Amino acid sequence: MVLIILRINLFDIVDSSEYSFILLSKHLSQRNQLQSQIRRRAGGSLRSSRLPETPARCFSCRARRLQLHREKPLTGKVDRFGGVTVSHFAPDTCEEAFSALLKESVTQWKEQGRVAVWLHLPIALSRLAAVAATHGFTFHHARQDQAVLCLWIGEGESRLPGFATHQVGVAGAVLDETNGKVLVVQDKNKTKNAWKFPGGLSDLGENIGATAAREVYEETGVRAEFRSLLSIRQQHNHPGAFGMSDMYLICRLSPLTHSINFCRHECLRCEWMEVAELCRTAETTPITSRMARLLLYGLHHGFQHIDLTMEELPAVYSGMFYQLFHRQLPESLRCS
Amino acid sequence: MVLIILRINLFDIVDSSEYSFILLSKHLSQRNQLQSQIRRRAGGSLRSSRLPETPARCFSCRARRLQLHREKPLTGKVDRFGGVTVSHFAPDTCEEAFSALLKESVTQWKEQGRVAVWLHLPIALSRLAAVAATHGFTFHHARQDQAVLCLWIGEGESRLPGFATHQVGVAGAVLDETNGKVLVVQDKNKTKNAWKFPGGLSDLGENIGATAAREVYEETGVRAEFRSLLSIRQQHNHPGAFGMSDMYLICRLSPLTHSINFCRHECLRCEWMEVAELCRTAETTPITSRMARLLLYGLHHGFQHIDLTMEELPAVYSGMFYQLFHRQLPESLRCS
Repeated sequence: MVLIILRINLFDIVDSSEYSFILLSKHLSQRNQLQSQIRRRAGGSLRSSRLPETPARCFSCRARRLQLHREKPLTGKVDRFGGVTVSHFAPDTCEEAFSALLKESVTQWKEQGRVAVWLHLPIALSRLAAVAATHGFTFHHARQDQAVLCLWIGEGESRLPGFATHQVGVAGAVLDETNGKVLVVQDKNKTKNAWKFPGGLSDLGENIGATAAREVYEETGVRAEFRSLLSIRQQHNHPGAFGMSDMYLICRLSPLTHSINFCRHECLRCEWMEVAELCRTAETTPITSRMARLLLYGLHHGFQHIDLTMEELPAVYSGMFYQLFHRQLPESLRCS
Repeated sequence: MVLIILRINLFDIVDSSEYSFILLSKHLSQRNQLQSQIRRRAGGSLRSSRLPETPARCFSCRARRLQLHREKPLTGKVDRFGGVTVSHFAPDTCEEAFSALLKESVTQWKEQGRVAVWLHLPIALSRLAAVAATHGFTFHHARQDQAVLCLWIGEGESRLPGFATHQVGVAGAVLDETNGKVLVVQDKNKTKNAWKFPGGLSDLGENIGATAAREVYEETGVRAEFRSLLSIRQQHNHPGAFGMSDMYLICRLSPLTHSINFCRHECLRCEWMEVAELCRTAETTPITSRMARLLLYGLHHGFQHIDLTMEELPAVYSGMFYQLFHRQLPESLRCS
């Protein structure tokens, strides 16, 4: 197959209509759009037989760059920190055009005293991320079908806020106060058979207590309700956290049902075990052992000695709530 | 400028050396590489004068797809969860070739019983993310100059682990036990002048106590040391957390220095205030007020009533440590 290509400047056609060309584009809609633009600009002097019907790669980059320059400059929304966010990109933006526009825009934003530029790129336009990188942009984060890139253009060191740094895991110690037994499991596929509390990672937007109750149910079949937070563990560069940090919280729960129906995909064993026995056994993890001693102390002397109670309070942002955990205050000091 | 293009199949040249062509490539090194490959395959029958010196866009996609097929198939590393991770991509991989290879590879991995595919893409090859998206891949996360995409190819619902969901912020309540005064600040640029404890976001890998001490120093000029954790707040869909969740921790610190030299960029005011006064004032936030009452109770009845003490323990993963926070146990139960 032989293709004859004449590189044309879209805006020259108005002055010089005798050019012959083949317009190449992968996308029919894009090709049709460009064809009608060319016909309009050429004032009808182009013969349509010259426009091929077979889609091929678009070669009108320079033309589109100019088109973009004249018709679709990068527009950004300024935030209260002095940063500019660009969220809209023409779907047919080519790399060359984008590079020129970005360079020009960043220069303008710097002159206007902006301190940062954010690009919200849909995954279909991810090729523009590579172009942005040549101008100093890096990934800030990405989720599902969008990547967010950023560039600090203010004075001095970057003051850009980072993205989420922690995954949150929750374990639920379901303690039956009537008989001093706690619900424990042994993971499947572990070399050491260690008794531990059922638990797992929080889903995005899920409260600590809800994760505890959900994970306990999923792993053991026991329904339980959140009572208090017992402990928080922070660990960095955690295996399985993609290089990020891990925040692991252990909650005390009360059982609502007792019958065990454990998940054979995740667990090897599951049972109700005396807290005193869990304190003694070597077949457990250091944290579970520590928590067992906390629970034993609570059972004998009252849970007020070990619990962090939770209260749900309205946030300053309308319609939203947060959960606050701390040692319970005496009645006299409790008024908010 | 008129360019004559002949689309050739790189592997046809061996049989038919009379083709004329112009090889178009943006990158000189890539162009040179392709040129020598063509010369080698054509057995020296090509005249070098036909190879242009001006770099232009590469048009030998089909040729390179075949080259890739024969020389560089996608190779993945299998993890213990049955997922495959691909981290190496030829820098000149073109979209068409990658699409074909990815489709073929995913089919093979499915047949081999793999449950997931992970692509670690450098930002310079981000255009391949758009191709992967057409095969069902989405962004898992991205940082700095790399994006990670994933696709669940196992049975049933995706069991892929999510990425970090929380940012962690820490406030430091620096309490001088000798005079019952605590260090408070008022943020600049706020409509309401509320007294609060200095604080800010944790850097990646930074311990809670270290964030508290750093933020206190940066905002107020006061050096202080971590004593205990007082409270944890969880809030979802937090403004400024890019749609993710926020974990906010409040620590008790002891002052090492007293002289205030506050950051005028962030703070409007900064002072040592009586805890009792902070409990009374309406010019504060609900959480600060709550913490002031905890501190007052601690001052009068002992900090063991309010503190979550911290202990650093070795993790099962060699050479790593974690920090564990909970209510202090009585001496008799403390042995780990």
